[in-house]
Amino acid sequence: VSEARTRAEVIITTGGLGPTSDDLTRQCIAELLGKTLIEQADILAHIASYFQTRRRPMPTQTRVQALVPAGATVLMNRNGTAPGLVLEMELSASGPAAKSSLLIMLPGPPRELQPMFSNQVLPLLEKRFPIEGPFVCRVLRTTGLGESSLEAKVAPALEHLVKAGLELGYCARFGEVDVRLLARTGDAPVLVNEAEWLVRDKVGKYVYGSNDDSLEAVLVKALAARRETVAVAESCTGGYIANRLTNVPGASDVFLGGLVTYSNEAKHKLLGVPEPTLANSGAVSEPVARAMAEGARLHLGADYALAVTGIAGPTGGTPEKPVGTVYLALASSAPTVVLRQVNPYDRESFKFVTSQQALDLLRRSL
Amino acid sequence: VSEARTRAEVIITTGGLGPTSDDLTRQCIAELLGKTLIEQADILAHIASYFQTRRRPMPTQTRVQALVPAGATVLMNRNGTAPGLVLEMELSASGPAAKSSLLIMLPGPPRELQPMFSNQVLPLLEKRFPIEGPFVCRVLRTTGLGESSLEAKVAPALEHLVKAGLELGYCARFGEVDVRLLARTGDAPVLVNEAEWLVRDKVGKYVYGSNDDSLEAVLVKALAARRETVAVAESCTGGYIANRLTNVPGASDVFLGGLVTYSNEAKHKLLGVPEPTLANSGAVSEPVARAMAEGARLHLGADYALAVTGIAGPTGGTPEKPVGTVYLALASSAPTVVLRQVNPYDRESFKFVTSQQALDLLRRSL
Repeated sequence: VSEARTRAEVIITTGGLGPTSDDLTRQCIAELLGKTLIEQADILAHIASYFQTRRRPMPTQTRVQALVPAGATVLMNRNGTAPGLVLEMELSASGPAAKSSLLIMLPGPPRELQPMFSNQVLPLLEKRFPIEGPFVCRVLRTTGLGESSLEAKVAPALEHLVKAGLELGYCARFGEVDVRLLARTGDAPVLVNEAEWLVRDKVGKYVYGSNDDSLEAVLVKALAARRETVAVAESCTGGYIANRLTNVPGASDVFLGGLVTYSNEAKHKLLGVPEPTLANSGAVSEPVARAMAEGARLHLGADYALAVTGIAGPTGGTPEKPVGTVYLALASSAPTVVLRQVNPYDRESFKFVTSQQALDLLRRSL
Repeated sequence: VSEARTRAEVIITTGGLGPTSDDLTRQCIAELLGKTLIEQADILAHIASYFQTRRRPMPTQTRVQALVPAGATVLMNRNGTAPGLVLEMELSASGPAAKSSLLIMLPGPPRELQPMFSNQVLPLLEKRFPIEGPFVCRVLRTTGLGESSLEAKVAPALEHLVKAGLELGYCARFGEVDVRLLARTGDAPVLVNEAEWLVRDKVGKYVYGSNDDSLEAVLVKALAARRETVAVAESCTGGYIANRLTNVPGASDVFLGGLVTYSNEAKHKLLGVPEPTLANSGAVSEPVARAMAEGARLHLGADYALAVTGIAGPTGGTPEKPVGTVYLALASSAPTVVLRQVNPYDRESFKFVTSQQALDLLRRSL
């Protein structure tokens, strides 16, 4: 902090605000700036109620988290006990031209840090450093196309808009690519709308949502709007598709249940996959994926059922069916659809990409 | 990079090495350092094989990822196409005393970045900045105790070792706390061993593993060693427990299957929970958790079955059963055990903490 304040207008620290002996941020900063620490009653009450709700005794050393350097602004922590702290610091002599520097101390645990940053720090920064002039930013979220294939389809159509000031960006995450459309010119809204229209025209079937949408939330919403239901039968993804769907608040309106059938016996017993099919085609096969989806739809009485069976690895591959091979099936009132994919990734990435393909199979059919 | 090289001996950049038009790191650095970019045949071959394995055409603009600034060391990317690049830079005149600075350019996507850092960058840094003298570090992983309760139990017993040079740290992640034992003195191994023994003596039942162990991996290993099997029945966790267990390579030896029974009908139909029990006690209740675990054990023929039923929120709470209430059951050849917990967190955190409690319930019984 001593060094950073000679050159930065905002300094953010994370961690070291907790109750244990190695949590030193609060104390060190107070010493550095010559501030006294004052116990604040409302923070203490918040900490006490945190433990009370969880039916746990409140250890005495957690009181240290109610100490605040004199003059600091407190960012209450809805997801933990240690509040964030904001201090205005005068810049040291050698610093830049700004009058003072803002020191923002945040808790380390991601689930406390992230909402505090989004809900409390961002508004503070936006107020201090207002965006000047027009600014429109929109993100279109796609799945099913690689980053460079996506650009090859989209970029030529947007060339004239880029010349007019559109900033075009791509962000590849695993199993999905974002297209970011940004403009700061006088006609920013028009530029971004026109760009969105062109992207949707070129690669519309790959676009599942925009900005903060997740594929699973889009799917739950679409099913709820149609008053339809879904069930899943999972082998290699081991419950991950059910987990993603049930991460969405309100999933219980559309998600009836899931069957994680790792063994052949479970596939037969719980989903009614015929034993000869398992014996003749193998568990990782088109007929088994089909029978799993149709069995899950029947057993759970759902409008749609997704099924996946594959080889997550690291072992179990063959020359014909290498590690990463997976069959995905969608059963509905229409004829069952089965896809074959190869996702040769580590185990957790395999599960993510496969779940993405399965959810997108249903999304497209809706 | 221009600024950082005036004060740092190592500079790490992430991102901007991909194939799209906004991936500018490679080009910018080459310009800054006056290096030419040379296409490297082995990287090109790696990229081509990456697309071939996935049965996708290779877009021409991905070739740009085979360009390497003259003199750079290449870090091959086993999980993507863009390699990492390492360049030795002479320090500018105003820099510190070191002769040169190391510029390490890494790809942005976490699943490419993280293994590249652990497997290729760390060894490089360890070689360049060797640890001098003795150094022992051990992490004990615990679940079931808060950070300050843990410290209150452990710290007094370790006081004399801390005086002798033991560095004691705590890292609270969600639903678990690490105890870090570190020593750099001549008798470092003795200090750390003694400390571990004392920690296990004080809070042994909360310690599930050490260093890189995960709770689910510890559990799969313990079950495999006993040649026993597990099944799960999940309501509020929606497949997350099954997902965690099946993240462990070799899970198929011990995990028979899971039932995600979100609706009352599914609880009755798939797990045999009696309809009067559901009607009289409600789905979130001790008798239903018990019946779910016993039903799953019976239907899947497992040695153990875990079941959870609760209110993940954000809605559905009552004064008696607030949001976050959950019943966890373990069925085995011994009498069924049922726990009640209150985990008043956001939906995904609720699922994590609940899964942690369920897996730990089984771990402790083993």
